[in-house]
Amino acid sequence: MADNKHEAIYFIFGATGDLARRKLFPALYSLYVEGKLGERFAIVGLARRPRTDEQFRDDVKASIEEFCRYKPKEAEGWDAFVGHFTYQSLDTGNVEAFRQLKTHTERLEAAYDIPGNRLFYLALAPELFGSVSRNLREGGMLESTGWHRLVIEKPFGYDYPSAERLNEEIRQVFREDEVFRIDHYLGKEMVQNIEVIRLSNAFFEPLWNNNHIANVQITLAETVGVEERGAYYNKSGALRDMVQNHMLQMLTMIAMEPPSRLDPEDIRDEKVKVLRSVRVMETAGEIAENIVRGQYAEGSAKGKALKGYRQEDSVDPASGTETFFAARLFVDNFRWAGVPFYVRTGKRLPVKSTEIVIEFKNVPNNVLFAKKQDLQPNLLVIRVNPMEGIYIKFNAKKPGNDMTVQPVAMEFCQSCQVGLNTPEAYERLIFDAVRGDHTYFTRWDELAVAWKLIDPIAAAWRQEPEGLQFYPAGSWGPEKADRLLAREGYFWWPVNGQEEDNVIWVTASK
Amino acid sequence: MADNKHEAIYFIFGATGDLARRKLFPALYSLYVEGKLGERFAIVGLARRPRTDEQFRDDVKASIEEFCRYKPKEAEGWDAFVGHFTYQSLDTGNVEAFRQLKTHTERLEAAYDIPGNRLFYLALAPELFGSVSRNLREGGMLESTGWHRLVIEKPFGYDYPSAERLNEEIRQVFREDEVFRIDHYLGKEMVQNIEVIRLSNAFFEPLWNNNHIANVQITLAETVGVEERGAYYNKSGALRDMVQNHMLQMLTMIAMEPPSRLDPEDIRDEKVKVLRSVRVMETAGEIAENIVRGQYAEGSAKGKALKGYRQEDSVDPASGTETFFAARLFVDNFRWAGVPFYVRTGKRLPVKSTEIVIEFKNVPNNVLFAKKQDLQPNLLVIRVNPMEGIYIKFNAKKPGNDMTVQPVAMEFCQSCQVGLNTPEAYERLIFDAVRGDHTYFTRWDELAVAWKLIDPIAAAWRQEPEGLQFYPAGSWGPEKADRLLAREGYFWWPVNGQEEDNVIWVTASK
Repeated sequence: MADNKHEAIYFIFGATGDLARRKLFPALYSLYVEGKLGERFAIVGLARRPRTDEQFRDDVKASIEEFCRYKPKEAEGWDAFVGHFTYQSLDTGNVEAFRQLKTHTERLEAAYDIPGNRLFYLALAPELFGSVSRNLREGGMLESTGWHRLVIEKPFGYDYPSAERLNEEIRQVFREDEVFRIDHYLGKEMVQNIEVIRLSNAFFEPLWNNNHIANVQITLAETVGVEERGAYYNKSGALRDMVQNHMLQMLTMIAMEPPSRLDPEDIRDEKVKVLRSVRVMETAGEIAENIVRGQYAEGSAKGKALKGYRQEDSVDPASGTETFFAARLFVDNFRWAGVPFYVRTGKRLPVKSTEIVIEFKNVPNNVLFAKKQDLQPNLLVIRVNPMEGIYIKFNAKKPGNDMTVQPVAMEFCQSCQVGLNTPEAYERLIFDAVRGDHTYFTRWDELAVAWKLIDPIAAAWRQEPEGLQFYPAGSWGPEKADRLLAREGYFWWPVNGQEEDNVIWVTASK
Repeated sequence: MADNKHEAIYFIFGATGDLARRKLFPALYSLYVEGKLGERFAIVGLARRPRTDEQFRDDVKASIEEFCRYKPKEAEGWDAFVGHFTYQSLDTGNVEAFRQLKTHTERLEAAYDIPGNRLFYLALAPELFGSVSRNLREGGMLESTGWHRLVIEKPFGYDYPSAERLNEEIRQVFREDEVFRIDHYLGKEMVQNIEVIRLSNAFFEPLWNNNHIANVQITLAETVGVEERGAYYNKSGALRDMVQNHMLQMLTMIAMEPPSRLDPEDIRDEKVKVLRSVRVMETAGEIAENIVRGQYAEGSAKGKALKGYRQEDSVDPASGTETFFAARLFVDNFRWAGVPFYVRTGKRLPVKSTEIVIEFKNVPNNVLFAKKQDLQPNLLVIRVNPMEGIYIKFNAKKPGNDMTVQPVAMEFCQSCQVGLNTPEAYERLIFDAVRGDHTYFTRWDELAVAWKLIDPIAAAWRQEPEGLQFYPAGSWGPEKADRLLAREGYFWWPVNGQEEDNVIWVTASK
């Protein structure tokens, strides 16, 4: 980037919080080391608790030492970098504090020759988004000549009405194009790769429809339990924590029509179209038939006993919150008519793995090789996390004299590249925000449609609390999640980390 | 195989020759070790020179020690195996010798309880095929109750008329279904795999036509020069030694329509159809435009100086024989109309590699990613020899913040499988012959059509000897071979062993 768009001040609200420490400071340092921030920038940490600049810089250093892919080293310009950080204690409800911030800001802009560009990263509870936005305006923080951008994190509301209220509050201060709603899954390398793989390969493009694809399976499996997030999670559950955002976003990346241009608005237009085509389930019957919710009970993993969700310290012992979600969704458009999208996510599953499996229709039965032996269908698998890569499972001749066919895999393992230092999701997203590129941020209309898909499910669940199924911690969720697929004769393909003994991997060692 | 088809006597004509020593004895031992021969069999070595059974068995042992994938060990039943070998000196022109052979044969059949099945492997000069066939009949060797099969090796004639005469002579004694014409390329694992990959994968089948494939490139590159085969090679040249058989056979495996059944005759019917659809080049102009012939001149490889073909000991210093052949062929049927098949083969090329590259049509220009950067087309590459495997080259996002697209590869390396002990081509083919499976043998009508494609080329060359182009030993042949493809905007993709720096290979180490 040869332009000066990144000459900005970054305001980190919630600068003493977990997100800032684990993700934001490390991302900023990586961007700095790679020359993407330049020198004309400043970072202002904001939170309620008092802290000197020095204390804050020590916090930043500790965070980067622990979480950043680059280490704080003089050779990488550490001292110069950390000098860009200042801290200001701020009560988000107090306009006067914002006025003081304005003075501080103008001083920094003069010192660093920054043309008034201001990025407000709200690592705060969503309840505060509205008041902070208002106080930014009231305190004069939006009066500079450069751009003003608001970066916010999920949850964007609890349902459609609350999301709409939240959005209204923000929109009284910021235009839609000034708002950057982070879904960090959209910052992941392999999620961004989906459209490249689909649209720059003549090999895949012709197969990307219901003539050739049998079903799509999206798994986002976690091994962790609820940990200290009980208070938040108990209210949100898997449906709001994972499905409304990450799962639906991955689904849109797989299902969207090719945009007419690669411009952010064109891409987001196509994503909204997919969400609008997802079949809304409204009746209790439809929901019971197509959706499974589970909660982990006591169990074990790798020989270690695990508590049930209701036994966790931070959880109400009568909690009806789902820690597992699986669904059979349909995208009712010409491209996808009849192709089930199976999605599942959960806590305390056996492996940590996010993977998208595209199962192709099999060759016709009773034709040639399929006549004599059961042929397995072809798979295209996109590995999102923690391993990143792509592989194709196909059928080949078993070496030897008989015409035995066996499934084998062709693989490209991106995360296996030696010496590859891939940007973290937050790095990409902060860099995109400062460049003003909205592609991998969620637009309001996407969010609105996603909530409209989610709300009827949540409502049906409230009507029928006994629908919650318990699964042992360390298992793949309630059995009913398998039956979702079994109806069509499908099953969940193993994901990375599971036993994958149904396919032969052989690659030259290079 | 639970049947008794393999209870047979194997008559190896030319038992003191190179083919028997390097390929046939090792193949028989491997089959024996793997239990595919059983114990009710005998092997009779036949050649002119006198030899005792003991001397012959020593020859066999030496050959197996040097060339077999199993070593002569008592644990593998070596002594029992070698006891099945006897030797008889035989003048192929003398019927009386065949009558003696009959007596010997009947004794062996009685001793091993073999039901009269006799496999005649003629590792002899083709000039002898007719007379040996006649003498087998005259000597009474075809009077047993079991089956009689003739296995013969290329060259099957020098042109269509001589091939037809040769075939006539054989057919006076053997029926077509008793004749097994070996093309050892058809015994190769990956060549046999082509139809499995094509026909048992929904992923490949829809793309296998001129809508999706831009061109096909078949390379059979040798690093060796003519060595001691000058006398034969000078008469044959690359056209007859490689193109008429191996190259056209690989082309038919790629291009054939799916057979209605996997029966040998159905498959061979489809292969003949492809050969009949190959556009015949008849005029000197067509041939000059689409075909390149070369002969290696002095050059070097890996710093070592190499003689030119005309300087080789066994070669006429004025020889006009081609050691390199490249052509642009068309299969004029609905599936392949407009898709060039580029084939090339040669001696003293830089690497030893047989590979089939299928280049797919690129995504449309000026669309999305292709608008901003040059996208490379997708390739499906079948590696035949010496490395065996398959890979796909496709485009993916370069890790990082920019939407840069880079070519990467997904790979399945069959020959990299640890502990895999793949049968040799000859093992498969002998085993197929004894089971009576003709699939991977050349039928007379295939051969006839192949010669009819070759003859006009040879005729045009005779008219225009100055068309021979010289290339330095150790190079990729005459420049004109590149221009064949350049006309359509294509180029030869690198094959295994060449520098392949235009693609990123990364696989998990498993």
